[in-house]
Amino acid sequence: MKEIKENKHLKTRFSKLKRDTLIYLAGFIDGDGSLLAQIVHRKDYKHEFQIRISVCFYQHKKRAWFLRWVGKQLGYGTLSKRQSSTWVWTIVEDNAVKDLILEILPFLRMKRKLGHLILNIIDSKKRVETKADLLKVMKLVDETANHTDSKNRVWTSLAAENYWDTGEKPISSRSSKKSANSNSL
Amino acid sequence: MKEIKENKHLKTRFSKLKRDTLIYLAGFIDGDGSLLAQIVHRKDYKHEFQIRISVCFYQHKKRAWFLRWVGKQLGYGTLSKRQSSTWVWTIVEDNAVKDLILEILPFLRMKRKLGHLILNIIDSKKRVETKADLLKVMKLVDETANHTDSKNRVWTSLAAENYWDTGEKPISSRSSKKSANSNSL
Repeated sequence: MKEIKENKHLKTRFSKLKRDTLIYLAGFIDGDGSLLAQIVHRKDYKHEFQIRISVCFYQHKKRAWFLRWVGKQLGYGTLSKRQSSTWVWTIVEDNAVKDLILEILPFLRMKRKLGHLILNIIDSKKRVETKADLLKVMKLVDETANHTDSKNRVWTSLAAENYWDTGEKPISSRSSKKSANSNSL
Repeated sequence: MKEIKENKHLKTRFSKLKRDTLIYLAGFIDGDGSLLAQIVHRKDYKHEFQIRISVCFYQHKKRAWFLRWVGKQLGYGTLSKRQSSTWVWTIVEDNAVKDLILEILPFLRMKRKLGHLILNIIDSKKRVETKADLLKVMKLVDETANHTDSKNRVWTSLAAENYWDTGEKPISSRSSKKSANSNSL
């Protein structure tokens, strides 16, 4: 792992955060957070797919206060229930995710490469016009799986391509409600 | 959560660590590490019980390099397999654990109270002579469960007391090989 290099001139919506807080959050994300890129099937989207990018902080419901502290520091995101006993603080807006990753990137150790990849996905998303463009972004999303322990991928670039060709959906290994291709580390 | 107060005059075997590294490790431990206090039944110990204190860093085997990095930073501990796909870096020597907790305590957020409790256990352990003394320490170990999500506690102070009185062991809810009362957050 290369030495940490910081860009002192970086200006993002999170630049007001203390350096200590950014380092702490990087450690927490490396341990128990997620940098997520997901292919989500949505009829109302152009080419019927959304590339959903998010940063998630998970915690047992009895420590939801910690997620509220994270949210207060960030000033962005929402608190929601994930499972019966797990709550999650999520940031989904692309530019907010980009800003946060830019700030914590120098302090991440395990998820730094994944962070770079997700920044690449966010930038590539903005230039999508054709199905071919979207497919390229989907392939980058596929790549994030190499950096994660994800086991429940449903929508991949291949599945999406097949869907465009044949109208067939992949068989979900989980609940049929789940259509997200969740790549969390 | 109170503001972070650091003791700049603290001297421990980990004082050579960079402040950034301590903050990062605190974030990681809050997310995916453990501060553990366990009651372990061991015939060869005085009063037949060991109070085992440890700090653990877990990670998927494919990221064992991260645990080696942690180990290199700390200069203490051992790498071992925990389950088929999970590896763990463990520090078990009481004084080393004490030193590490003292260093990261100002930066912990979720596990700071647990950290204080474990420091208390380490100090109390040193003064144990009678069964009554040990029982007091065991009750502090029981207390750590209030700060964790532990579900597989086997040996509690009550179980140990009962064992001293009747020779009966508690029924393990897990494999009979497991005799540790594992309180990990």
